[in-house]
Amino acid sequence: MPGELIFIGAGLSRDDISLKALSAAKSCDMIFAEEYTSRLSDCSMEELETIIGKKINVLRREEVEEEEIPIEHALTKKVAFIVAGDPMTATTHISLRIEAEKKGIKTKVIPGVSIYTVVPSILGLQHYKFGRTTTLVYPEKNFFPLSPYYVIKENMERGLHTLVLLDINAEKNRLMTVREAVDILLEMENRAKNNVIKEDSLACAVARAGAEDSIARAGTMKTLREENLGKPPHTMVILGELHFTEKEALETLCGYREM
Amino acid sequence: MPGELIFIGAGLSRDDISLKALSAAKSCDMIFAEEYTSRLSDCSMEELETIIGKKINVLRREEVEEEEIPIEHALTKKVAFIVAGDPMTATTHISLRIEAEKKGIKTKVIPGVSIYTVVPSILGLQHYKFGRTTTLVYPEKNFFPLSPYYVIKENMERGLHTLVLLDINAEKNRLMTVREAVDILLEMENRAKNNVIKEDSLACAVARAGAEDSIARAGTMKTLREENLGKPPHTMVILGELHFTEKEALETLCGYREM
Repeated sequence: MPGELIFIGAGLSRDDISLKALSAAKSCDMIFAEEYTSRLSDCSMEELETIIGKKINVLRREEVEEEEIPIEHALTKKVAFIVAGDPMTATTHISLRIEAEKKGIKTKVIPGVSIYTVVPSILGLQHYKFGRTTTLVYPEKNFFPLSPYYVIKENMERGLHTLVLLDINAEKNRLMTVREAVDILLEMENRAKNNVIKEDSLACAVARAGAEDSIARAGTMKTLREENLGKPPHTMVILGELHFTEKEALETLCGYREM
Repeated sequence: MPGELIFIGAGLSRDDISLKALSAAKSCDMIFAEEYTSRLSDCSMEELETIIGKKINVLRREEVEEEEIPIEHALTKKVAFIVAGDPMTATTHISLRIEAEKKGIKTKVIPGVSIYTVVPSILGLQHYKFGRTTTLVYPEKNFFPLSPYYVIKENMERGLHTLVLLDINAEKNRLMTVREAVDILLEMENRAKNNVIKEDSLACAVARAGAEDSIARAGTMKTLREENLGKPPHTMVILGELHFTEKEALETLCGYREM
């Protein structure tokens, strides 16, 4: 009997999982998950196992992308692949889905609440005022890509905000903090010298989006660097031009005070 | 006793509501909803009432924005305000939240699965390749705004895709279809003459995003106009440059064939 591969979004925090996702996960023969593209804010995989009532096998990147373990099992079984946030915001999962379809496996996507929508919503920023999104990665020796800087520049020139996603280093179990991100962004400015990001540039920081102890702050890069935001996951927004209702939202919801 | 106002996202389709949203809705003294900024793909408010197990009072725009009925009740009671999709993607709800906070009412946002993420995910398009989003409104006598056209133009010049949300006329219970949207977009080209949108421009159409009978198609404006997509809600994407994995996704998932 041909199998099935269901991509399930678990959302960002505890109990963000939808009724549809829960019922699909319960109906599967095997459940896989990964934690290298995205992490739940306040809920462990063990807790998610308890909510679903089934064993979750957490895979490493090579097990998903090279060995294609979810596909292998989905050839004959009904398999769930669970990801924090929305399961298709990571391009690597789109490839996995196409690969499965090509092998004749029926696929399905059950969306999850995503950082793409939740962060603007938490901050009270207008969704249609966001330009393209970018991701900051941990620099390595001889690897310091400036592409996020130019995405921010392009958005800023159009008065648009930029959602800045922060890297996860799954092997080291290290999630980038806003403090680290500010340092990286300022170092980018230092190298590219286009006068895009300065210590007094306005930005927002969100820690543990969606969780009960979530924190949202707005201020200069310098003040955000000094904020005690607690544990990651963290996310940033580099602000473009603020509409007055956005300014009001940042003041009311994120402790923003104009300087 | 001071009240509370909880904005709840119901997601796009049946059972997209999260465990968190469901439990919050159940705990409220009164539940309000609106259907003028967003609609569930395949689920009526009566069905949502059954899922929650409580009466939902659907409000008209004036009742929310002028009479501020949710705020009035939230002064003393625990009130839920339920919206399809994510409750904060509509700027009008951000204003309502700020207004409530200013009156000393505690507010909370429980996110929902949103069209902003679900449509790219369904189509297999890469989220970070989207520029800003725009909304097509029904033209009226002496009212034919060209702003969406210029948003698409700006995104296209940068090789980016544009998510095009389609209008809801709640009074007439009319939801814009892709066919109507294509006509409006071509008429915009006709007026602005910037060579942005032509009959052979590439786009995607999604009908009833997230529902079991959801349809996703990719093709030229002309072919999409002729597609039988069934009932709205419909959504469009005007395509920028396609990465090869995106092209592969459109071919595998949306019946796209290069001409």
